[in-house]
Amino acid sequence: MSKKVINTQVMQGFMELSPIQQRVFDSMLATIRTAYERFGFIGIETPILEREEVLLAKAGGDTEKQIYRFVKGDNKIAMRFDHTVPLARYVVEHMSDLTFPFRRHAIGKVYRGERPQKGRYREFYQADIDVIGRGQLPLSFDAEIPSVIYQIFKELDLGPFLISVNNRKILNGFFVDLGIQDSIVEILREIDKLEKVGAQAVRQSLVDLGITPETVDQILSFIGLNGSTDEILGGLQNLRVTNSDYLKGLEELTEVVKLMRAFGIPDSHFAVNLTIARGLDYYTGTVYETKLTQHPEIGSVCSGGRYDNLAETFTNESLPGVGISIGVTRLFSQLWALGLLKPMASSPSIVLVAPMTDDLSNAISIVADIRNADIPAEVYFNGGGLRKSLGYANQLGIPYVIIIGEDEIASGKITLKRMSDGSQSVYSSIEEVLETIRS
Amino acid sequence: MSKKVINTQVMQGFMELSPIQQRVFDSMLATIRTAYERFGFIGIETPILEREEVLLAKAGGDTEKQIYRFVKGDNKIAMRFDHTVPLARYVVEHMSDLTFPFRRHAIGKVYRGERPQKGRYREFYQADIDVIGRGQLPLSFDAEIPSVIYQIFKELDLGPFLISVNNRKILNGFFVDLGIQDSIVEILREIDKLEKVGAQAVRQSLVDLGITPETVDQILSFIGLNGSTDEILGGLQNLRVTNSDYLKGLEELTEVVKLMRAFGIPDSHFAVNLTIARGLDYYTGTVYETKLTQHPEIGSVCSGGRYDNLAETFTNESLPGVGISIGVTRLFSQLWALGLLKPMASSPSIVLVAPMTDDLSNAISIVADIRNADIPAEVYFNGGGLRKSLGYANQLGIPYVIIIGEDEIASGKITLKRMSDGSQSVYSSIEEVLETIRS
Repeated sequence: MSKKVINTQVMQGFMELSPIQQRVFDSMLATIRTAYERFGFIGIETPILEREEVLLAKAGGDTEKQIYRFVKGDNKIAMRFDHTVPLARYVVEHMSDLTFPFRRHAIGKVYRGERPQKGRYREFYQADIDVIGRGQLPLSFDAEIPSVIYQIFKELDLGPFLISVNNRKILNGFFVDLGIQDSIVEILREIDKLEKVGAQAVRQSLVDLGITPETVDQILSFIGLNGSTDEILGGLQNLRVTNSDYLKGLEELTEVVKLMRAFGIPDSHFAVNLTIARGLDYYTGTVYETKLTQHPEIGSVCSGGRYDNLAETFTNESLPGVGISIGVTRLFSQLWALGLLKPMASSPSIVLVAPMTDDLSNAISIVADIRNADIPAEVYFNGGGLRKSLGYANQLGIPYVIIIGEDEIASGKITLKRMSDGSQSVYSSIEEVLETIRS
Repeated sequence: MSKKVINTQVMQGFMELSPIQQRVFDSMLATIRTAYERFGFIGIETPILEREEVLLAKAGGDTEKQIYRFVKGDNKIAMRFDHTVPLARYVVEHMSDLTFPFRRHAIGKVYRGERPQKGRYREFYQADIDVIGRGQLPLSFDAEIPSVIYQIFKELDLGPFLISVNNRKILNGFFVDLGIQDSIVEILREIDKLEKVGAQAVRQSLVDLGITPETVDQILSFIGLNGSTDEILGGLQNLRVTNSDYLKGLEELTEVVKLMRAFGIPDSHFAVNLTIARGLDYYTGTVYETKLTQHPEIGSVCSGGRYDNLAETFTNESLPGVGISIGVTRLFSQLWALGLLKPMASSPSIVLVAPMTDDLSNAISIVADIRNADIPAEVYFNGGGLRKSLGYANQLGIPYVIIIGEDEIASGKITLKRMSDGSQSVYSSIEEVLETIRS
C-alpha cells in the first residue's frame, strides 16, 4: 500500500505528539503562561536564529559543542540554546523601550545537539521568567520568584513538590573561611553529587582533592545541617563563621525565607538546602531547585537563581537579575511516561452536530449558533448514518452530539445526546441546549 | 559607556518586537488560535527541524533555494518553510492515532531565506487550518473554511474585508474548451497579474503567448464577468461551456456559495472572483484569497484552497484536503506600519501595589490576594516614593495602583488610584477593591 521511501519519523531527539498528548502538553504550557502573566511578567519573543557571535559570546564547554550552527549567504547563524542569552541581547538592544525592573517571560523552543538519551531532547520548550534591574534589583524579587513556582506546580497538580532554596554567598563565604577558596569550583562539583552518590563517596572525593579530613568533616557537617527551615538558619548562625560573604548570604537567605512566607508559600513546600549550587560561574546569590517529592528520579523540574550581571558580554551597564526556567518538554515526557498526566479529549469541540438528512442548512445554522455562544463545535459532514457520527465523537472525546433528522427539522426540536452515559434529551430551542451544555 | 563590540540587532529579515508591540502581536495570535479551536480544529505541533529529504520531497523552484539547510553529525537537516509539508508527514506517520476527517490547526514560525525586502521576513508566523479526509472529503468543508476566515477577520477588527472565492476546475475546463489547455500554466500566470498590470497589458501578454485575438477576447470577457455573486454564477451558466471539468467546477462553486451563506457569511464579505488561481500545481478545486478592502496594497491576508492529495510523496493513500494560511508576521508588520492596530498596555498587570513603608509584608499579602482572584498584579519593590511607583505604572500601562503607607497599615484601609483620571478612593477591604477593579 505505502510507497514510503522517505522516512516520516521525526529525527532522534525531537518530540512530536499525537493529538491526545498534544492537548495535554498545550494545557501545561497554557497553565504556565497564564500564571506568569498573573504575576505581571511580559511575554517577549526573540528569534530562534541568532548571529553566531551573539550566542558564542556566552556559551562555553559542552553547550558550545551542542549549538546548531550554519552559514547561509554571508551570515554565520546559530540556533538559540536557552532564553537567557537572547534576553541579554534583547535588553541591551531595546533598553530605551523597557521599564525597569523589567519582568519578562519567554516560552519557546531551544536547541541543543546533545547525544540523544532518555528524557533529553535536541528541540525542547523552556518556559522562563526573569526580573532584570538596572544598576540594582531588590532582594524581594528573590522571594517572589519561588512564589511563582509554588503557584504553577500547585496548578499543574502533579502531586507534592518541594522548592529548595540556598544562597551561593553562604557556600562561597564558608569555603573562604576554611581557607579552601581555591578549590571552590571542584568542591561544589562534588557537593552537587551528594544526593546521587552519598556522603561517603563525596567525603572520599574531597579528600582526593587534597582537603584535610578535619576540613572535610566541617564541610560535611555544614551541608548536613538539617531540621526545619528556622533550625537550619539558626544552625548557620551558630557556626560563628565571620566571613562577610557568608554573613551577607545568611542575611539574604533569612530575608528571602521571611518574604517567601509573606508571599504565601507554606513551609511544607520549601526548604533551605545547603547542597544546592546550580551552575558554577553564573549565579551569585539565591539559588532554587524544585523536585516532585514522589518522583525524585525526574530531577529538578524548575531551577534558577540570582545573577549579578545579565549582559556583561554586550554592555558595561550593570543588569542584575533573578529568574527560573521550567524544562517543559522534558517534564512532560517524563510525566507522560509515568502515567501521571490526566488525559484530555483530543478535540477542542464540545458539540458535534450530526445531520441525518441531505440538506445540511439546518445543521450548519445550528453549529453557527453554538460557536457564536463561544462553545467549540463542528458538523459531521461525512454522512454514513448516526453510528459513524457517534464513533467520530467518541474517538475525539467530544462530549455532546446534536442529532438533526427529518423529525427534528419538521418539529423544530433539537435532540442532544450526552456521550458519557448515552442519554438523550429533546429541547425546543438552541438556547435551552446551550444552557444545558454550559451547566 | 557601552562596550558593544557584538551587534545586538537581530539579523536582517527577522522581526523582534518591543513589549508594547509584542502584546498586540500576541493578542492577534490568541484571537486566531481561539477562533480555530471554536471551530473544532486540533492544535498540532511539528518540529521546526526536519530531515532534509522530507522538505525537499515537495519543495521546488524558489522555495527550494530559500530553505535553510545544514548538516549536524550524520543528519542532513532543514528548517520547515511552511506547515503543509510537515502536516503531510505527520498525517502519514500518525495515521493510526488520527480520526478522519482530521481538522488540525498549526500556528508557528517557518523559515525562508528570501532576499530581505519590505514586508518579507525570513522567520515568520504562519497560522494554518486544514481538514484532511481519508479517501474523500465532502465539499461542505470548502464552505466552512471561509466561515472561519470571516469570523477571524471580524474579530481582529481591521476594517472591511472581502473573501474572494473561485474554483480551479472552472478555469481549467474553460481553457480546455477553448482548445488552449497546453498554455494553461502560462495563461494563469498572466491572469494572476490582472489586478497589478491591468487588462490591456494582460491582453498583450496573452497575444504574445500565441493565442488568437478572438480567444483572448473570450478569456477576458470570461474573467471579466461581474455583478453580484448570483449574477456571476448565472453568467457562468450562460457561457454554455460543455467541458465536464467546467461544469463540475461550476456545480461545486454554486454549492459552496450556498453553504457559505448557510454558515452566516454575509454577501457583503465574499465574492466570486474568476481571476484567482493560487499556485499552479497544488490546488484542484475551491480557492480563496482575502483582502482588506481599504488596504489592497497589503495583498491577500489569508489564502488557501482545496487539494486532491496532501501527501503523495509519502504515501499512496489518497488524502484530499482543504485549508488556509494566515501570514501573521507579515500582516502584523504592515498593519503596525499603517497605524491600524489598537495599542495595548505593555504589561499584563492590572494592579501595581506600591508599598510606602520598609516593611513589605502588607503589600505582599495584598498582591497575593489579588492574584488569587485571578487578576494580574505585582508589587513595586524599588522604593523611591509614590512618584516612582506611579511612573512605573504609567509607563507599563498598569491601570490601578494600590498605595500602602503607614496610614493604610494602621487603619486597615486600602487606597486605590485609577491611573486613567488620577482619582483616588479608600476601601475598607480587599474584596471591595477587587469588586471595583472587576467592574
